[in-house]
Amino acid sequence: MTETKKTTIVLFSGDYDKAMAAYIIANGAAAYDHEVTIFHTFWGLNALRKDEPIAVQKSFLEKLFGKMMPRGANKMGLSRMNFAGMGPQMIKHIMKKHNAMPLPDLIELAKEQGVKLVACQMTVDLLGLKPEEIMDGVDYAGVAAYLGDAAEGNVNLFI
Amino acid sequence: MTETKKTTIVLFSGDYDKAMAAYIIANGAAAYDHEVTIFHTFWGLNALRKDEPIAVQKSFLEKLFGKMMPRGANKMGLSRMNFAGMGPQMIKHIMKKHNAMPLPDLIELAKEQGVKLVACQMTVDLLGLKPEEIMDGVDYAGVAAYLGDAAEGNVNLFI
Amino acid sequence: MTETKKTTIVLFSGDYDKAMAAYIIANGAAAYDHEVTIFHTFWGLNALRKDEPIAVQKSFLEKLFGKMMPRGANKMGLSRMNFAGMGPQMIKHIMKKHNAMPLPDLIELAKEQGVKLVACQMTVDLLGLKPEEIMDGVDYAGVAAYLGDAAEGNVNLFI
Repeated sequence: MTETKKTTIVLFSGDYDKAMAAYIIANGAAAYDHEVTIFHTFWGLNALRKDEPIAVQKSFLEKLFGKMMPRGANKMGLSRMNFAGMGPQMIKHIMKKHNAMPLPDLIELAKEQGVKLVACQMTVDLLGLKPEEIMDGVDYAGVAAYLGDAAEGNVNLFI
Repeated sequence: MTETKKTTIVLFSGDYDKAMAAYIIANGAAAYDHEVTIFHTFWGLNALRKDEPIAVQKSFLEKLFGKMMPRGANKMGLSRMNFAGMGPQMIKHIMKKHNAMPLPDLIELAKEQGVKLVACQMTVDLLGLKPEEIMDGVDYAGVAAYLGDAAEGNVNLFI
Repeated sequence: MTETKKTTIVLFSGDYDKAMAAYIIANGAAAYDHEVTIFHTFWGLNALRKDEPIAVQKSFLEKLFGKMMPRGANKMGLSRMNFAGMGPQMIKHIMKKHNAMPLPDLIELAKEQGVKLVACQMTVDLLGLKPEEIMDGVDYAGVAAYLGDAAEGNVNLFI
């Protein structure tokens, strides 16, 4: 079979380390010529947020969620050993020493390699995120589009 | 190939938001005529609990676990931004505004669409849950049954 | 098709209960003659640590991470109801009553059944773990090896 292989990842988690795992697998798969899609839903959407505050009209609850959620990949916490926010800095320090790519670079690389980044429209709406707050080059889609990709996929992961 | 596609989800998590993701994918897959199974294990079993207390004989530890674990989908917490229990209410309020289905309705819909709901017998026993406490229409099975479904599956997820 | 089926699990989590789920599925799949690989990354590596302290040269941060992370499967915590460390003891007590295998035995069984245990080289380095601290019979590999297994896999899970 010379068919293109497909890797489809649902990124649900808003943790820096889990998002790193997702993007490392995605970049690896893209390097092996898989067609790769990362479908960002719920807290995983935070990886796609721009890191500066954007002026948009929001309801009270939307504002609250917007404030409480990290603005972009670089501000996400760890799933464990977060140490009140010190953990991510420690991991980033170690990663630098080992020449490992930080998450924002992994996302940039994924884009360059043609990984399709999708934001789940339903959870974008639920969390009150506005398109202006989301990085460029992201598609918006729903569960039907996800299933279309996943049903043909070789590697399907929920992270 | 015109074979029926299969989606098999292990729901391990007892978080409201993760269970929502599982049931949204399951309902989507069922709508596209996949054969769908959700295999509930460990804390994911809480989604299948009846919401009223049921009088059953339990050991001390079983009683303790029973008390500490949420009774049913509506009482589950969020994986993040739970805010000591306020988070789920906030999410439910927002979902209502957006006409998104709450988890108990998603479970009802899944049943109506013929999604097979399975409770992992081993973890039912470990957590001291009794059949009387679990909603009707649920199958009980083990890892062998899960693997039988998953090995033929198109979409396999662990949530 | 009489091809050997493949099950490939990424164990990212350092939680006792999630690792149990991973190893129960892996042992089940091996019993059904699947070729099974568990790829341990990030906190999942703790399941492969030897339980005694090993004298190795480490930097300050490596020492800190080494101290904070559990030494081996038996010392891992629960993903919920950990109760400041009492939860795992309670679960182990209940498991004993039900003749369910504790995690270290599940790992032994997996080895005996020929499940391939892999440690992710990149995260071993990031977390400052040394080969002397990891149990014997473990392979070291990266995302390319994982994808090679997963792309041919029937059951792919991220736990």
